[in-house]
Amino acid sequence: MEEEAAAERSNLAGVRHILLVLSGKGGVGKSTISTELALSLRHSGKKVGILDVDLCGPSIPRMFRVQDNDVHQCDSGWVPVFVDQDKSISLMSIGFLLEKPDDAVVWRGPKKNALIKQFVADVAWGDLDFLIVDTPPGTSDEHISTVEALRPYKPLGAILVTTPQAVSVGDVRRELTFCKKTGLRVLGIVENMSGFVCPHCSECTNIFSKGGGEELAKHAGVPFLGCVPLDPQLSQSLEEGRDFIQEFPKSSAFPALARIAQQILDGTSQRSS
Amino acid sequence: MEEEAAAERSNLAGVRHILLVLSGKGGVGKSTISTELALSLRHSGKKVGILDVDLCGPSIPRMFRVQDNDVHQCDSGWVPVFVDQDKSISLMSIGFLLEKPDDAVVWRGPKKNALIKQFVADVAWGDLDFLIVDTPPGTSDEHISTVEALRPYKPLGAILVTTPQAVSVGDVRRELTFCKKTGLRVLGIVENMSGFVCPHCSECTNIFSKGGGEELAKHAGVPFLGCVPLDPQLSQSLEEGRDFIQEFPKSSAFPALARIAQQILDGTSQRSS
Repeated sequence: MEEEAAAERSNLAGVRHILLVLSGKGGVGKSTISTELALSLRHSGKKVGILDVDLCGPSIPRMFRVQDNDVHQCDSGWVPVFVDQDKSISLMSIGFLLEKPDDAVVWRGPKKNALIKQFVADVAWGDLDFLIVDTPPGTSDEHISTVEALRPYKPLGAILVTTPQAVSVGDVRRELTFCKKTGLRVLGIVENMSGFVCPHCSECTNIFSKGGGEELAKHAGVPFLGCVPLDPQLSQSLEEGRDFIQEFPKSSAFPALARIAQQILDGTSQRSS
Repeated sequence: MEEEAAAERSNLAGVRHILLVLSGKGGVGKSTISTELALSLRHSGKKVGILDVDLCGPSIPRMFRVQDNDVHQCDSGWVPVFVDQDKSISLMSIGFLLEKPDDAVVWRGPKKNALIKQFVADVAWGDLDFLIVDTPPGTSDEHISTVEALRPYKPLGAILVTTPQAVSVGDVRRELTFCKKTGLRVLGIVENMSGFVCPHCSECTNIFSKGGGEELAKHAGVPFLGCVPLDPQLSQSLEEGRDFIQEFPKSSAFPALARIAQQILDGTSQRSS
């Protein structure tokens, strides 16, 4: 009860839904999915924050092209970085705290845990419909600390991202075990980089094989949120910090990303009603 | 001096060259490059070991299709898992120590550090030409502990793997800073997933853009070891635990991988002469 009372006074009191984006393996597209989910939710009129707890390899600032911004202090803590004038998307990342963006954060666990606690307690998010927590690969300090620090705020759950290959799917299986151990609900699995449609001949090749994510979801009894194809327009948008959802509604990845966001919205509206 | 005397009595005394495979970002192909480098070096008649210090997402056992093997004890420590009857490639990974391969290793830093120390001290490698250390993404506990534990054995240096996108290249820049901070020599940069040659029309598409790795190497004044293209035959070989170097000499990734191994061999023969 005391924990709950503290939660009501905290910087996260105005945040309606918190969700984590996890994956055992790196480079499967956690930050891509976090970014595009935020853009899709904004497209539906929602206010969204992204908390990037990848301390050794933060990519969120660059994906929104705000990597040169600094974080300022206010009375209630750190002011997140706003992506647009409407302040509809706000970000917090260690990338904003480094003097030079190439600085390596050579930190052992305890130091990382302390910063994550601060990230959860001290960012003045204000009112948000969604806070998306983008995590590093693995199931270690950052994950344990994040889940522990967020527990009083009752996160909605986790989206697990995988690529189709067996190796990556094995890692997601470990992540499912992690969710079970820590009591985190699995909102669903996303299979990223599911196939490549050649822009020259329009034939699809499954570079990394296909179908592992859906199979795993079925096996584990959790929702499958969809396949996102490999799409050069999507990679380029992320590299240039452009709004893919706004600019490329006809691309092959767009319907997949929109569907993922819609399922998250449907899940929360059911929950509130 | 005492440290050196201890090194001469150790399990690593018969290992000629130690090299690390690093990358700030996950999923760029560290384990792929480690595996193919080991296979290429064996092809040149070398004896090779791989130490997998990715404790949360070990992929090496699966890439050699020996994930169901167990590690046994002998007088001088743990016996590594041999991939072939000739015992030309041997492996050590946490994957061999887990009861179920899907078990999540939810460990904080200190526990990880202890296992890494054991991995460095207690594996009975015997005589090896090369020991390749495959690392997890980032610059944290596993990396600091590995570099510290290996220091008395004077590692040859590190191969940094990146994909062409700016985000990934930013992460490798952080890894360069890490090498400088810890005094680890950079053997060179590999750009992985550099382009996709469509098997239907043979046109090449740079799904993740191109050239970032070479540019970065030039900028940092370190060798560029080459570009490895996206190659479905390579992904499939890794998934099925097949010897790509033996079976697909005509594939698009083969010459790139062979050239990387040759440069490592050239570097070490110069060094010994």
